[in-house]
Amino acid sequence: MTVLILTSEQDVTADMVVARLHEWCVPVMRLDPADLPGKAVLSADYAHGDFDGHLSVNGHVLSMGGLRSVWVRRPGEPAAHAAHPSPWLTAETRQALYGMLYSASTRWMNHPRNAEQARYKPWQLRIAHLSGFAVPPTVVTTAPRLAQQFAEEHREVVVKSASGPPPGDPALALPTTLVDPGADFSAVAAGPALLQRYIPKRADIRLTSVGTRLFAARKRASFGQIDGRYGDTGHSWRSAGVPDRIAKSVHEYLALSGLAYAAFDFAEDEEGLWWFLECNQGGQFGFVELETGQPIAEAVARWLAQRTRDRRTPDGLR
Amino acid sequence: MTVLILTSEQDVTADMVVARLHEWCVPVMRLDPADLPGKAVLSADYAHGDFDGHLSVNGHVLSMGGLRSVWVRRPGEPAAHAAHPSPWLTAETRQALYGMLYSASTRWMNHPRNAEQARYKPWQLRIAHLSGFAVPPTVVTTAPRLAQQFAEEHREVVVKSASGPPPGDPALALPTTLVDPGADFSAVAAGPALLQRYIPKRADIRLTSVGTRLFAARKRASFGQIDGRYGDTGHSWRSAGVPDRIAKSVHEYLALSGLAYAAFDFAEDEEGLWWFLECNQGGQFGFVELETGQPIAEAVARWLAQRTRDRRTPDGLR
Repeated sequence: MTVLILTSEQDVTADMVVARLHEWCVPVMRLDPADLPGKAVLSADYAHGDFDGHLSVNGHVLSMGGLRSVWVRRPGEPAAHAAHPSPWLTAETRQALYGMLYSASTRWMNHPRNAEQARYKPWQLRIAHLSGFAVPPTVVTTAPRLAQQFAEEHREVVVKSASGPPPGDPALALPTTLVDPGADFSAVAAGPALLQRYIPKRADIRLTSVGTRLFAARKRASFGQIDGRYGDTGHSWRSAGVPDRIAKSVHEYLALSGLAYAAFDFAEDEEGLWWFLECNQGGQFGFVELETGQPIAEAVARWLAQRTRDRRTPDGLR
Repeated sequence: MTVLILTSEQDVTADMVVARLHEWCVPVMRLDPADLPGKAVLSADYAHGDFDGHLSVNGHVLSMGGLRSVWVRRPGEPAAHAAHPSPWLTAETRQALYGMLYSASTRWMNHPRNAEQARYKPWQLRIAHLSGFAVPPTVVTTAPRLAQQFAEEHREVVVKSASGPPPGDPALALPTTLVDPGADFSAVAAGPALLQRYIPKRADIRLTSVGTRLFAARKRASFGQIDGRYGDTGHSWRSAGVPDRIAKSVHEYLALSGLAYAAFDFAEDEEGLWWFLECNQGGQFGFVELETGQPIAEAVARWLAQRTRDRRTPDGLR
């Protein structure tokens, strides 16, 4: 039974997980969907009410019946490395590859269907509510008057991007930024803004969940620092305990969203309360492992290596 | 309680459904996501563990608490009509709109999360197997040798696109085509091919499912015609009964895929057996209604008009 890792060639985080799987003699196939068709060959058979499929990379063959789990790490776009790439070839190749993998009975970290919905930040806030997390009051709006009202009511307000930084090369950094309540909000009419009450924090918390295992790390904030992802605080990530109430909410969130892996960001306020900021289903863990020594790569490898129960139906069904 | 229809301005099929809803005095809001931001204004509030949101179009305001159902018909790309459109503005607007709608407790026809997976044709074949349909033997492959083998084994074989016709204006027609078993399959290595055993058919069947209601239509095939979607057969669509076995499989398929609406295509062979060809979660029904008089638009309107049960959680959760 083989673990399939979908990622690009340069991926040191995947390397860490592959090293563990090799130690345990668990067969691994690493595939960048960009290399299909080309380096990789695929074939899926639907006949007589049954299904089988094969993936072949560098002479190694993986049968869908022997698929233990799939880790969707940093996959390239299907057919991106083809001799004659085109949007249509990408669409056809995506259908062939993911259509075949969706047909298999296997475990996903994370199933693309669940990952896709989990990327919606407003939805994250709602699921966080339902899971019992403390969530800073937030508004997502294209109405300048409502943005203004929100800023006046909450005084200290940050503005964030919902979808991430604007595309571009080099990538634009877009740190979360404090907004002056007297600011001119008229531009909100031209593009939605996500405004959130600023939580004065004494630390950033990164909680990485792998299956049911939770790894919390804490980094003390510098005075006046808004976005823990940018700038040097002079502090480093240290392992932290996970309060019971938080663990319960994390498990609830994972159940509601169908995620096997997630990286949660919290702000720890002056009273020690953890405020939910976001949950990144594909969040990095390499830097946390490096600074804290927490065995996250091993936990990922362990989750991937688990034996699949025999099941009749593909995963990711409703 | 209002029905929200996401579609472009020119959509006569949506018009048919809106007419029924108007007759029954059910409030309707019609929104093209392309008009947001601009003609439409949005605001979503996440505060104190609760959620509320508003959509406003042409001075009409819809509260998320008053959302009865959402029909995802033919929505434009978010922000496509903005004064300064960009991929980033589209991404931010998609987050804001769908993130808000996913947060609401409402019924979807179809939830985009389920719709997205339902578009994968290889997955359709597997779900069709599991639902008990007869499915023509099919292979999806980038291996010329396997394509060749399949063609030799099954003799009469058609080739299809998995993702639909190549993009382009004017659109290229890409009818399902019979393949000569002696054909040169070497090009399969450059792009995946979907090959299927040809089912000599006496009729095409289009079965439209709306919630639990099924509408089957039948069109006699002309001698030697391969793809019922292209060319005039001299026959028209007529209402047909739905065999019990098929109805059972359709309901199973809908349960497995989480779809509220779907259009199934079958080939009826010389013995009268219906072979599953595909299931289009967004398939048209206007032409069937026009030719058969089946009240499909009314059924869609009825499904959308149903009262939502009070529920704590958003729909589309795992």
